Amino acid sequence: MSEIAILGLGLIGGSLGKRLSVTHTVVGYDHDPDTASKAVATGVCSRVEATAARAAAVADVVVVAVPVDAMPKLFAEIAPHVRSGVTVTDVGSTKAAVVASGLARFGDRFVGGHPMAGSERHGVDAADDELFEDAWWILTPTQDTASGAYQQVAALAAECGARPIALAPEVHDSLIARLSHVPQLAASAVVEMAASDVDNEPLLGLAANGFRDVTRIAASDPSMWVAIVRSNREAILEALGELEGILEALRTTIEAQDWKALHSVLHRARAARLELFAKPVYTGEPVGISLLIPDRPGVLAEVTTAAGELGANIEDLRILHSTEGGRGRLELVVAGRAAATELVATLTDLGYHVDVGVPG
Amino acid sequence: MSEIAILGLGLIGGSLGKRLSVTHTVVGYDHDPDTASKAVATGVCSRVEATAARAAAVADVVVVAVPVDAMPKLFAEIAPHVRSGVTVTDVGSTKAAVVASGLARFGDRFVGGHPMAGSERHGVDAADDELFEDAWWILTPTQDTASGAYQQVAALAAECGARPIALAPEVHDSLIARLSHVPQLAASAVVEMAASDVDNEPLLGLAANGFRDVTRIAASDPSMWVAIVRSNREAILEALGELEGILEALRTTIEAQDWKALHSVLHRARAARLELFAKPVYTGEPVGISLLIPDRPGVLAEVTTAAGELGANIEDLRILHSTEGGRGRLELVVAGRAAATELVATLTDLGYHVDVGVPG
Repeated sequence: MSEIAILGLGLIGGSLGKRLSVTHTVVGYDHDPDTASKAVATGVCSRVEATAARAAAVADVVVVAVPVDAMPKLFAEIAPHVRSGVTVTDVGSTKAAVVASGLARFGDRFVGGHPMAGSERHGVDAADDELFEDAWWILTPTQDTASGAYQQVAALAAECGARPIALAPEVHDSLIARLSHVPQLAASAVVEMAASDVDNEPLLGLAANGFRDVTRIAASDPSMWVAIVRSNREAILEALGELEGILEALRTTIEAQDWKALHSVLHRARAARLELFAKPVYTGEPVGISLLIPDRPGVLAEVTTAAGELGANIEDLRILHSTEGGRGRLELVVAGRAAATELVATLTDLGYHVDVGVPG
Repeated sequence: MSEIAILGLGLIGGSLGKRLSVTHTVVGYDHDPDTASKAVATGVCSRVEATAARAAAVADVVVVAVPVDAMPKLFAEIAPHVRSGVTVTDVGSTKAAVVASGLARFGDRFVGGHPMAGSERHGVDAADDELFEDAWWILTPTQDTASGAYQQVAALAAECGARPIALAPEVHDSLIARLSHVPQLAASAVVEMAASDVDNEPLLGLAANGFRDVTRIAASDPSMWVAIVRSNREAILEALGELEGILEALRTTIEAQDWKALHSVLHRARAARLELFAKPVYTGEPVGISLLIPDRPGVLAEVTTAAGELGANIEDLRILHSTEGGRGRLELVVAGRAAATELVATLTDLGYHVDVGVPG
């Protein structure tokens, strides 16, 4: 049982605290004193400190859960106070900039993270200890990340009921631009388009379920979204430009009355949408693989990033350090035989000697 | 208890049949014999006829529930067989073209309609007698529509649990382009944009709830949607062009790092989205109004269209014909005092003498 500092007690920080308080001592911090006292009163943490630095100074693990644009400043503030060997992670929804800032401040003990969980509600009042149940929790180790730090954060995610998966920070940001940020902007744009027909404004209430679904997330907090867009501007601009191009092509197709082409676009989108969720990508019988690894920082990240890029889910992971030092054995459990086979091939290409099957 | 013919026994036709079979004799037709026999077996209709013309020939009311692009042909096929004085309606999701075709074939006994209900499932197997419960059912009378025909279809909609509301066909089509057709295309475009990142394709399964919501309707039947887009091409092109413009403006704003402007767009969209569904537009205490009307076709349509354009919901409606002929009294119950006041002013401007309050 370690002591965990959670800095920022909104929906994500508060939910983490509620969940982790059962088995750990959680010390909290929030810049808003009302939020801080509510957090103690509702069991989010056992106590709060008046400054982030003070909360970070006593912890074995520090979780930073402030808005993405506030991260670099908070990292700078706590860095002199975090004890050596303590793991620092964050829960921001974009990663390249945050990870660069985190590595600069905390070195190989920093592991970027992004739990893929949320709610239309926000703030500590919405804190929910089930929020992360079965959610993906993306971790973004780099070549500079220490294996031990990665393991600690992955274990924390698993403790919250989430499924940790590793991706390179840039892969994360491009993916999230497409799966979250641009869909968010598209939802707002659809509302704007519908509402621009001011003559018929009272009739917008006739909208059926399809419109409700498409535009639901347009009701999210605009300030939070401005901060997210700022932090992932490049990837968003690229994906947004593509979306515009796709809509323009659709319009040209409809203008030209090329109904065969329209059918094939709609058909392809339908197939992709059905495939996306028909079968969870990362399931299958667990397959164990093991490999010898040199005992240096970055190795674990290399392996988990390779797994993430293949879409192979690592269900379990442990490192057996050689008693003589210098080398160790990494044991992984991967979901699905096909994924395991692909991962073995990739790791072999990277120069690892991999065995399939690990001792129970 | 009248005999109702339902031509086309898919989701909408089948659901109508299930609901109306309880109190009416329903005779069905479907071009697919399997669907037809399933419809009889599952209580959608009491019998089926081998041709649409034969089913239409015996009915007091004919409901055409085939895909929008098949309507004109079916209208032509049944027109010689429909008895004089029989009301014909349709349930197509676009109205201007269908209504023009219906009026040409059936004259003042045709009333266009569009129940705002649907499901991701389709076909007679998905028929559900609760499908129309509390849904809007848009009727599109024109100056050529007979009052009696309108009343009959409005009563049918109400019998199915739906709330009838009248709109001009062109108003309907522009509104539906914005509330249904373009959001549908946008959902497909968002899937296409996400799936275009082929390098990370296996990772698309990481999509969270927001993406699921925005893209849910992209899983709809492409053939049905091609037919819908064909039938509402002009209105869709206009709204789609506007959506492109809004997205382009968003991209320019993000490119220019004008975060204040981005905030205000997102804020405006959020407010519009919240307002849209926070309060149902058409509620309030029922207010009765009554007016003298000349006994000619088109009068009822003029009144209901005026109500629809104001966003005033007509909750109840009856016509008391003068025993001397030539004039009658129209009694309406409108939801909400503000809507009633506006409607009274509009109708007065149109030259009607309107009284507020009708005898119970």
